[in-house]
Amino acid sequence: MIVGIIGATGYAGAELIRLLALHPEVSGFALASVSFEGERIERLYPNLWGKVEAALVKPEEAVSQAQVVFAALPHGVGEPHAKACLDAGIPFIDLSADFRFDDDEATYTAWYGKPYAHKTLRSHSVYGLPELNRSRIKELAAAKKVIIGNPGCYPTGASLGAFPALAKGIAGPGTIIVDSASGITGGGRELSRAFHYPECADSIAPYKVGAHRHTPEIARNFAAMAARPVPVIFTPHLAPMNRGILSTIYIPLAASWRPKTASVGAPRPPTKEIEEKAAEIRRVYEDFYKDEPFVRVLPEGIIAASGRVRQSNFCDISIHLDQAGTTLVVVSAIDNMVKGAAGQAVQNMNIIFGFDETAGLKAIPALF
Amino acid sequence: MIVGIIGATGYAGAELIRLLALHPEVSGFALASVSFEGERIERLYPNLWGKVEAALVKPEEAVSQAQVVFAALPHGVGEPHAKACLDAGIPFIDLSADFRFDDDEATYTAWYGKPYAHKTLRSHSVYGLPELNRSRIKELAAAKKVIIGNPGCYPTGASLGAFPALAKGIAGPGTIIVDSASGITGGGRELSRAFHYPECADSIAPYKVGAHRHTPEIARNFAAMAARPVPVIFTPHLAPMNRGILSTIYIPLAASWRPKTASVGAPRPPTKEIEEKAAEIRRVYEDFYKDEPFVRVLPEGIIAASGRVRQSNFCDISIHLDQAGTTLVVVSAIDNMVKGAAGQAVQNMNIIFGFDETAGLKAIPALF
Amino acid sequence: MIVGIIGATGYAGAELIRLLALHPEVSGFALASVSFEGERIERLYPNLWGKVEAALVKPEEAVSQAQVVFAALPHGVGEPHAKACLDAGIPFIDLSADFRFDDDEATYTAWYGKPYAHKTLRSHSVYGLPELNRSRIKELAAAKKVIIGNPGCYPTGASLGAFPALAKGIAGPGTIIVDSASGITGGGRELSRAFHYPECADSIAPYKVGAHRHTPEIARNFAAMAARPVPVIFTPHLAPMNRGILSTIYIPLAASWRPKTASVGAPRPPTKEIEEKAAEIRRVYEDFYKDEPFVRVLPEGIIAASGRVRQSNFCDISIHLDQAGTTLVVVSAIDNMVKGAAGQAVQNMNIIFGFDETAGLKAIPALF
Amino acid sequence: MIVGIIGATGYAGAELIRLLALHPEVSGFALASVSFEGERIERLYPNLWGKVEAALVKPEEAVSQAQVVFAALPHGVGEPHAKACLDAGIPFIDLSADFRFDDDEATYTAWYGKPYAHKTLRSHSVYGLPELNRSRIKELAAAKKVIIGNPGCYPTGASLGAFPALAKGIAGPGTIIVDSASGITGGGRELSRAFHYPECADSIAPYKVGAHRHTPEIARNFAAMAARPVPVIFTPHLAPMNRGILSTIYIPLAASWRPKTASVGAPRPPTKEIEEKAAEIRRVYEDFYKDEPFVRVLPEGIIAASGRVRQSNFCDISIHLDQAGTTLVVVSAIDNMVKGAAGQAVQNMNIIFGFDETAGLKAIPALF
Repeated sequence: MIVGIIGATGYAGAELIRLLALHPEVSGFALASVSFEGERIERLYPNLWGKVEAALVKPEEAVSQAQVVFAALPHGVGEPHAKACLDAGIPFIDLSADFRFDDDEATYTAWYGKPYAHKTLRSHSVYGLPELNRSRIKELAAAKKVIIGNPGCYPTGASLGAFPALAKGIAGPGTIIVDSASGITGGGRELSRAFHYPECADSIAPYKVGAHRHTPEIARNFAAMAARPVPVIFTPHLAPMNRGILSTIYIPLAASWRPKTASVGAPRPPTKEIEEKAAEIRRVYEDFYKDEPFVRVLPEGIIAASGRVRQSNFCDISIHLDQAGTTLVVVSAIDNMVKGAAGQAVQNMNIIFGFDETAGLKAIPALF
Repeated sequence: MIVGIIGATGYAGAELIRLLALHPEVSGFALASVSFEGERIERLYPNLWGKVEAALVKPEEAVSQAQVVFAALPHGVGEPHAKACLDAGIPFIDLSADFRFDDDEATYTAWYGKPYAHKTLRSHSVYGLPELNRSRIKELAAAKKVIIGNPGCYPTGASLGAFPALAKGIAGPGTIIVDSASGITGGGRELSRAFHYPECADSIAPYKVGAHRHTPEIARNFAAMAARPVPVIFTPHLAPMNRGILSTIYIPLAASWRPKTASVGAPRPPTKEIEEKAAEIRRVYEDFYKDEPFVRVLPEGIIAASGRVRQSNFCDISIHLDQAGTTLVVVSAIDNMVKGAAGQAVQNMNIIFGFDETAGLKAIPALF
Repeated sequence: MIVGIIGATGYAGAELIRLLALHPEVSGFALASVSFEGERIERLYPNLWGKVEAALVKPEEAVSQAQVVFAALPHGVGEPHAKACLDAGIPFIDLSADFRFDDDEATYTAWYGKPYAHKTLRSHSVYGLPELNRSRIKELAAAKKVIIGNPGCYPTGASLGAFPALAKGIAGPGTIIVDSASGITGGGRELSRAFHYPECADSIAPYKVGAHRHTPEIARNFAAMAARPVPVIFTPHLAPMNRGILSTIYIPLAASWRPKTASVGAPRPPTKEIEEKAAEIRRVYEDFYKDEPFVRVLPEGIIAASGRVRQSNFCDISIHLDQAGTTLVVVSAIDNMVKGAAGQAVQNMNIIFGFDETAGLKAIPALF
Repeated sequence: MIVGIIGATGYAGAELIRLLALHPEVSGFALASVSFEGERIERLYPNLWGKVEAALVKPEEAVSQAQVVFAALPHGVGEPHAKACLDAGIPFIDLSADFRFDDDEATYTAWYGKPYAHKTLRSHSVYGLPELNRSRIKELAAAKKVIIGNPGCYPTGASLGAFPALAKGIAGPGTIIVDSASGITGGGRELSRAFHYPECADSIAPYKVGAHRHTPEIARNFAAMAARPVPVIFTPHLAPMNRGILSTIYIPLAASWRPKTASVGAPRPPTKEIEEKAAEIRRVYEDFYKDEPFVRVLPEGIIAASGRVRQSNFCDISIHLDQAGTTLVVVSAIDNMVKGAAGQAVQNMNIIFGFDETAGLKAIPALF
């Protein structure tokens, strides 16, 4: 199968190449770039030297050669390519935000500043979080008309961390706070002061506090799973590391899930009852994800860490309670470039084509 | 003035040496260590070579030579030295948790596993957060009997970030969440798997979720400032950097401080009203800290970052609101080894002796 | 095929697991550890969770179950296991230094402080650098008696960088200087002050200057390729990164290979003649390695960097001349844990069993 | 004293501000920038907030207000400012390469691509390496006409590491190899792919091999000290750290300094004779630098490391011999932004004005 990648020279594009070059069903690439058309990918990414060597072509050319097209483009420019693929019956997997909001154009426009170019495409598009929408993806694929809105990196980690609590009534009313830290590849390949080594190394800081575009995407996923609106506060941080997203998610416990012994006065270390409640919730999570190939619910005593899913498509989840027993604290970890972007896109491709869902994604996390 | 440091070979001890060696009122050191007695400090810390060279003596010897004693010891072992200093009329500045809880021995014991050795010492001790207790420090100093319980690193950043909101009624009822990330010097000099380079570099993870000893200290400070109990959830993270603590603090807004335009439905980007409310709160913070030499309330558009207080005694604070207008999000940044430990201890020494409070602490943060 | 790994809990052992778990010919593991016998590998390495789960057994047990045995043990303790495997006709791939010196026990003993335990094993052992000894490896494998002395990390990068110059008479008489920097995984899993994050992050330093055990191994390889003794100076550095070895190798040019225009007086930027001479040498290197699957000779304008072979079995080589035209400067880059240890061991296994030499080693380097 | 800084917004400019703000003789700044004229320095560098706050003025304005002028400009544009200062009798300390080559305009032009703008300025300029030219600096200062060509970062570390060997006949004939690694601040504030975090973190690589502009500067210093031409090869590397330069310098020993026991055959660990010879050379170094306030010759057993001079003006030097006894291996470490740039410039200012040479430069290196 020939895979087309539009926007192949950005980091998500390059990561797609790295993963798909080893995919058992992929025989070749058609790599496209507007900015670097005519240049060679292995000159831009010398790490590919001798493994993937190709001249960059125009997007149209890539579409015409491919059996599946990935787009790793800026927001708001890919719809024409999506339309062309839809018309040609070729699956289109879009890593931008353009197909993440379905019919809710108002929310998309409020955060991304543009209307949809082709509204009708949304009747063939689906938000590509397999753990949420696997059956819908298959349905569209069966109809030979499928556009994937591949999820944002932060929403992937946040959603997988909160889903069981939302689906099973563990989450009570009240705001869920998602506090996340991302590695610097999350900022992409474009040069920027924020990603200039001396200004981000050895330092951590939030950005776009109360104003990040992934907030509505997270809220949308939470609401879909809880079948009710869920207030969300989301704060992204930039951490001095290459890869990974670690989300610490604070979920108010439903009354029925709170430990019976109320905490009063000064905080005390967690009681046995609190640990047992955490264990009970952990079992709910394990059960919820028991058939998911890429979600690992960690046992008691192991806390999710971004470095332990490095280079893999896993989402690791660990379950905790605050010492007062009012709040579920879920920690989720993904590799932002894999499960948070290119890996999840490949997972979607696998689902669409009926391949083993883990094909090309079997890498074991490298501890270092 | 001769300064005694007990526990001089740990990281906090070494940082005290680095700062005090340039203090205009300090003429020499008496450095003590139980584990390394007889060895030379410049062999253990070759960065001191040619600047501070001394053999390590017994604690008792250091006490006998010094006009002020700092103790950078593990929790639960320093009280005899405190007593000796008190009896001798020498100020004792303790960087452990032993004097952070005043009369509340029950909380101390619950978290640190020991009773007080000498309860009565607490009538001469004070929690040494100058922004909270400056006048009490001076009072005890005037009486020539003063023990400082130097604050924990996380509680310093968390408390300074929340104090104005707590004091001025901006914080409403409800739990305050403190989500913090620390550099790895926070773990100290002792070898540990968690701090072995390949296992913490390029990764971020929380630890002791719902169970960190700084939780009661933070809650205590919040309650002191709010004059009411304040529920607190605190999650520390280990970030791949040498120094710094960044705290993102989620404070439910009191009804009177909420923007009037309620948010309903899917999240929208922050409105002008939200930004104005943030500006109003920022002014409260600026006013609250206007006489504090080490707290910088950052202007709109600049977000606190741990790397911008590096090697300094500053606490930087930036003020934000979530997009729905329900929650104040305060970001505070300190250098965990300076304002979070040794620098604050020096600040306490300056207050005790009536020196310029910034003496020895004038370093401008290094951006890198 | 069941693979036995003795010393499975060290970093090289863990990296073997990571690579071999995806090897097409490997069906299972027998993992052994003396220190952690009875514990579970996925508890020690939670990154393996859900992928490789096994209790650690005794070395003898692993040997009895396996069709091939890897030993990732300290130097000087593995010979009994090698003998057992030899007797049983099972290939033994040793990642320690015990089988790197063939008959030259004197050199081994001078640097490693021990005599050989079973001298006669050396008639069935070979230094497992495939680019040097591939045919001998096959020969021993054909005889069903084969012990591999898997090369040291530094010697691998240094040797591959210098081999064509030594074989083709480009290197003249005089000392070759190998100046290398390694990531901190090179120090292994054992805790040590040198690898405590705050003391190695954001800093670079050499260690064991003029005294590193890889010196005789490098010299031995150089001599083997040049068919004459070659004086070598080797300086290893510790660089603040997880993986990778970068070697900058200074090779005095044979008179016949020097640019004709002699340089006199103050240095001048490189001339066109110097660049042409470098290009000529680059062609010799390309030709020398044209059939090697894991050596990439980089084109003009691309300099080898450790980060561009990350997680792969490649050795990247770039060719340069000093501005005076007297010295060939070769830069080689490997991943110390892959081509420098576990990957090369797998490559040796592939050769022994007649598998595709790249089986299990096809990973494309991750740029980040 | 009012200090003028032209080019205040680059990293060297910012570091000058950080250091000079605490200098006891400095009362204020006149900060100039062409690119950012009219903007405020504390907005560009929020780490300065509340400590140094100023609008950026035109260079001419800064010159007119100042008693001393530092220029941290690109090469080839500062001479007019130097001339203006010279005419006004104001010391001009230039951090570019424009005044590092004295009369040797040919070498300057060959490497920097421009002729001198005002040749005659060189009769009042001096290469500002105090350890080489302190008396000449004082002479020019006494004449009230002084331009300092502040040394390059690499040449500072390389020169101080080699000077005693060159001056005392320890270095024999033959090429000296300087293999250096720099932190990424060495690349300055301007955005560049090479300094984009994901592409330089966790990786090390050389750059400009055989072609770096600091080569002629190093050669010039070596020749000045040895009073003969000294062939030099210099290779700079970029290491994943913020600050610091570590140079490993290979100096062929003069015959008279070689250990008597010749090494033959395979390398052996260093003998006692080799260690004694190293100790002898170490004593020569100690004696050579005994009056230098910023050079530390480290004792046996301590190897220079870039992280141990962090934030200080020290140059640390450690002395080693290769195991064969043919080559002196000197390791030198500086902070590239301090002794390698701004700190050395301040040191020059101190000499010019007759201040304590360590004024403003007393910082003790931070281990982390």
